[in-house]
Amino acid sequence: MGEFELIRRFFQRPTRRSALGIGDDCALLAPTPGMQMAISTDMLVEGKHFFADVHPQLLGHKALAVNLSDLAACGAKPLAFTLALSLPRADAAWCQAFAEGLFALADAHDCELIGGDTTQGPLNICITVFGEVPTDAALLRKGAKVGDDIWVSGSLGDARLALDALLRQHALPPAVLAQARQRLEQPTPRVALGMALRGVASSALDVSDGLLGDLGHILEASGVGARIDANITRSLLRARKHPLMAALAMSRIDACTLAGGDDYELCFTAASAAQAEVLHAAQQAQTPVTCIGRIEAEPGVRIMTPNGQQLPLRFASFDHFA
Amino acid sequence: MGEFELIRRFFQRPTRRSALGIGDDCALLAPTPGMQMAISTDMLVEGKHFFADVHPQLLGHKALAVNLSDLAACGAKPLAFTLALSLPRADAAWCQAFAEGLFALADAHDCELIGGDTTQGPLNICITVFGEVPTDAALLRKGAKVGDDIWVSGSLGDARLALDALLRQHALPPAVLAQARQRLEQPTPRVALGMALRGVASSALDVSDGLLGDLGHILEASGVGARIDANITRSLLRARKHPLMAALAMSRIDACTLAGGDDYELCFTAASAAQAEVLHAAQQAQTPVTCIGRIEAEPGVRIMTPNGQQLPLRFASFDHFA
Repeated sequence: MGEFELIRRFFQRPTRRSALGIGDDCALLAPTPGMQMAISTDMLVEGKHFFADVHPQLLGHKALAVNLSDLAACGAKPLAFTLALSLPRADAAWCQAFAEGLFALADAHDCELIGGDTTQGPLNICITVFGEVPTDAALLRKGAKVGDDIWVSGSLGDARLALDALLRQHALPPAVLAQARQRLEQPTPRVALGMALRGVASSALDVSDGLLGDLGHILEASGVGARIDANITRSLLRARKHPLMAALAMSRIDACTLAGGDDYELCFTAASAAQAEVLHAAQQAQTPVTCIGRIEAEPGVRIMTPNGQQLPLRFASFDHFA
Repeated sequence: MGEFELIRRFFQRPTRRSALGIGDDCALLAPTPGMQMAISTDMLVEGKHFFADVHPQLLGHKALAVNLSDLAACGAKPLAFTLALSLPRADAAWCQAFAEGLFALADAHDCELIGGDTTQGPLNICITVFGEVPTDAALLRKGAKVGDDIWVSGSLGDARLALDALLRQHALPPAVLAQARQRLEQPTPRVALGMALRGVASSALDVSDGLLGDLGHILEASGVGARIDANITRSLLRARKHPLMAALAMSRIDACTLAGGDDYELCFTAASAAQAEVLHAAQQAQTPVTCIGRIEAEPGVRIMTPNGQQLPLRFASFDHFA
């Protein structure tokens, strides 16, 4: 199977929205008048972002999910994406499964593949995603104000819990591992929530490198600090709800929820007065949200335990080169 | 040096045109009203698209050049690009030189870096480039008509001549190798020519996999065939002009010019009646163009030698998985 046949068989589909899709030198996209294009790129490397033996269908899902999550963080509506794929060999079964996972998620968000590149080399998946958002309505990192509530969507830390188990750093009951692993391998981009938070959230980003590190980007961009309720963040680890997990060490719960990475939840701030609007947006988007703390003037993050103690900040954010 | 410092030190610069550049979850780009966005992605893998020991400054140039070449092929004006970079390690000297080559070409085309991704892994460079072109004015592959002239910009085959010499398949005088190697390592995207050919060319693409293979895409998309003058295509190998190169085998000249790859010249068609307009566009763009043949109704390509013989089609186009 050659390069062009591979593209035709597994990746070329009729375009629905774009002016021109796969098959020419460029794709052509016409954004709706009055909208800005939101653009994000994420590259996934074997052994770094996924295990060599991960099922290609899950990989197809995740490669697009992490990109859609960036659109969600800006409140943008997905339009299209390009896919650059470096493959060790033209493996039809692999491509078939990868394309299934990819297109299932793409179709769920009405986001179409409009171009890309295919080459032979170490497994590497680079997706660039395009969305649109009304001019000046994008959710940015820099808008957090003193007194704003800090919110997180969904759950936190289960992906890291699964990763650590797969790396044999601890053992998990099979049922708990299966559930946590789904969070690691099939993250849910919070696209509907991001769009519903336009005009409501004062700042937002997606949690990909761990809550504390990512929240730090909001704080730095906004020139503020934060106080976080440790008891609430601990409650966001979904695995804790399993009866077999009552004995999980608090230090691991904190490591997973505060610095876990791979969550792809939204972390956002909103004025305290906008609490009802936040909850309405969450309901509209059918996505649970939890208020985990408050923006303060003093720089840095203070994580408070139920007995009023401040948790030491031992949790570094993920850095590819650290 | 961590991931964020690497980005800040070498790649983050103030945006001039885009609504939002590096540093948030997405970049924001607002195309000019009435324009379509032209989008293209190219991924470069070490050992496939470049030698491991190539100078990073040249690599920075080439990684963007091959993408700009796709915009040129559509007649689009460059606006911005994203860069996803997988690096074995955070090497400051390498990043510095790579960024120099990259930004020199980007600045020459007023094309700004608006986002991307950095990760640790086998060296892989994935650029997605954005341009704009008036609605319905993009040059496509499908417009070639019977009787149209077939044109090529600049020279053909020197990149392949250099590649073969570097792979020790033949020897070249050092001065010839240096000149040919520049074509391989510092290709010139024909952006000005592409824009000047809007409304003039009936079809266009850029020659990246070799003239015959790429022209084949025009012919297939347009449902036509072509007759090519072998004597003219042979004259497009610039190295032949060197006095020491008189003895170069005709078979090598044909292999380089007809199936060389890595040329990044434009191949385009235009009505015979538009010859003066083509030459005017070429003059405007300060880019030499040569008429190499004509579109015919009969499918396939016929390469005619000066004595009226048809050259056998022994030249396959480049395929990463063939």
